[in-house]
Amino acid sequence: MHVLILGAAGMVGQKLTTALIADGGLGDQALTRLSLVDVVEPPAPAAFSGAVDRVAADLSLPGTAEQVVASRPDVIFHLAAIVSGEAEADFDKGYRINLDGTRFLFDAIRLVGDGYRPRIVFTSSIAVFGAPFPDLIPDEYFTTPLTSYGTQKAIGELLLSDYTRRGFFDGVAIRLPTICVRPGKPNKAASGFFSNIIREPLSGHEAVLPVAEDVRHWFASPRAAVSFLKHAATLDSDRIGPRRAISLPGLSCTVSDEIASLRRIGGEAVVARIRREPDPTIGRIVAGWPTNFNARRAAELGFVAETRFEEIIEAHIEDELGGRFVS
Amino acid sequence: MHVLILGAAGMVGQKLTTALIADGGLGDQALTRLSLVDVVEPPAPAAFSGAVDRVAADLSLPGTAEQVVASRPDVIFHLAAIVSGEAEADFDKGYRINLDGTRFLFDAIRLVGDGYRPRIVFTSSIAVFGAPFPDLIPDEYFTTPLTSYGTQKAIGELLLSDYTRRGFFDGVAIRLPTICVRPGKPNKAASGFFSNIIREPLSGHEAVLPVAEDVRHWFASPRAAVSFLKHAATLDSDRIGPRRAISLPGLSCTVSDEIASLRRIGGEAVVARIRREPDPTIGRIVAGWPTNFNARRAAELGFVAETRFEEIIEAHIEDELGGRFVS
Repeated sequence: MHVLILGAAGMVGQKLTTALIADGGLGDQALTRLSLVDVVEPPAPAAFSGAVDRVAADLSLPGTAEQVVASRPDVIFHLAAIVSGEAEADFDKGYRINLDGTRFLFDAIRLVGDGYRPRIVFTSSIAVFGAPFPDLIPDEYFTTPLTSYGTQKAIGELLLSDYTRRGFFDGVAIRLPTICVRPGKPNKAASGFFSNIIREPLSGHEAVLPVAEDVRHWFASPRAAVSFLKHAATLDSDRIGPRRAISLPGLSCTVSDEIASLRRIGGEAVVARIRREPDPTIGRIVAGWPTNFNARRAAELGFVAETRFEEIIEAHIEDELGGRFVS
Repeated sequence: MHVLILGAAGMVGQKLTTALIADGGLGDQALTRLSLVDVVEPPAPAAFSGAVDRVAADLSLPGTAEQVVASRPDVIFHLAAIVSGEAEADFDKGYRINLDGTRFLFDAIRLVGDGYRPRIVFTSSIAVFGAPFPDLIPDEYFTTPLTSYGTQKAIGELLLSDYTRRGFFDGVAIRLPTICVRPGKPNKAASGFFSNIIREPLSGHEAVLPVAEDVRHWFASPRAAVSFLKHAATLDSDRIGPRRAISLPGLSCTVSDEIASLRRIGGEAVVARIRREPDPTIGRIVAGWPTNFNARRAAELGFVAETRFEEIIEAHIEDELGGRFVS
């Protein structure tokens, strides 16, 4: 099986690469070839006996998508996107990469024709929803995004569903919860602080909390994100049906819950590294985000997420910190 | 006030033009200039003391949108689209006209900059919804279209909401019920038969009914459509709020209800001109369409539709047939 990962240099892309190689395949198919594509050349993966291509390419430039799909991968993970904060700050770039890039990809596959019909897993986001919300957002809830990023993801979902219905490919769009604890350096996502206030204190560093502690949000760990992607890649297409966008399960908790979990695991000295510094811009963006879902359909389709925030912190300590933190 | 109508040569565009001239304005603003644009030159309107431009232009060609908005109309009615059947039959043309054309228009307005911020009324459609449905579709129901046309309209709504939120213009998208009785010749819309079975028999002609009589659908007259457009153009922007797409009120009834109303008005001889000729393709498309709505929000915003199918037939006889029909 040939797997293509677009956005392979990103955090989730790298973790997915590592997991696929460790698993040796996807479902019951052996992994024989990996194509890793991003705007910067993705890092070389760990030992893998199959073929690996690593390509620096910008999907939003005409012609790139055609080159990328010419090798006819069986499964395409489309993770490539610029994040919410950047898409809001740079209108043109956001639409160019998140909308045009996605459409170029979908059209390149369509225009191969000749029966080529790969599974595409497209990472959408809970940012397709915009406040006000019911307490639990049901699967049938409408998408009224309050950011350009959310708009671009919602459009990607619509295109994916129509192209799938037309038989151009076999797509599934998964609405990831906010990934937490995100490792590495902060990126430009407005949601970054949800991770920063856990990751930085556990490494001995100060972190800024720009919102109130009663802010509630919807989370899943990087581990869960990788499991979602793999599961989405192997789901039976008929079971998904014509509605190809799926709100994934996650864990609903407040910043206060996050901090309490961090205190139970790390102690008071770790928690003391969180510094309150309200940022009205981030506060306004976050206030438009969903806080809790009834992800019934995803559960029926076999997607599983964490149920306690401590699990999310423990996964971070195990996977990123070698089991240790700075107390 | 300068009003631009895109799609001015179409049935609704022509009726809107006539109504605006008869009214002499929109809301409390006098109409001083009308720009009528379509892929064919729109017909000259009835006596109007202000300036009229009639332009044949294809909005889906780069550069056209910039020319069209250069005169800075205060209100833009964006009715231009190819219909559902044609968008389904010609994938590329559908996306080019219904998606690219709309995006070119929105971007042309955005790139004027300098505070130009017209009201845009975009005609969306109930085709943004796809079966299965609840008995009454609520305002918060998700858009999972089962046609490329519905997909393109749903994407137009998302773009319009985001561009409005960004302050590039002041948009409102109205999801029209199926317009019935549509005058003139049949077009390529899969919904055409809903009108054909009323219009043709009243003119002494045979009409084909391609679906079963228990098919239920959601209707408004051309008169109601014009009233919706005018009302949408003058709605207070703050009252609409950030969710700019509105499901309009309509009348839910079955083909059997249509025929019964026709019988009450026209008698048995008129009804006898309906010929049953099932078409599985049309049946399949129509089976994915909505049948009934709870259009609470539109009602609160002051949109009003017919409540009995007889009113719809009577409006047709008055407006199109000079009060007479072939009995």
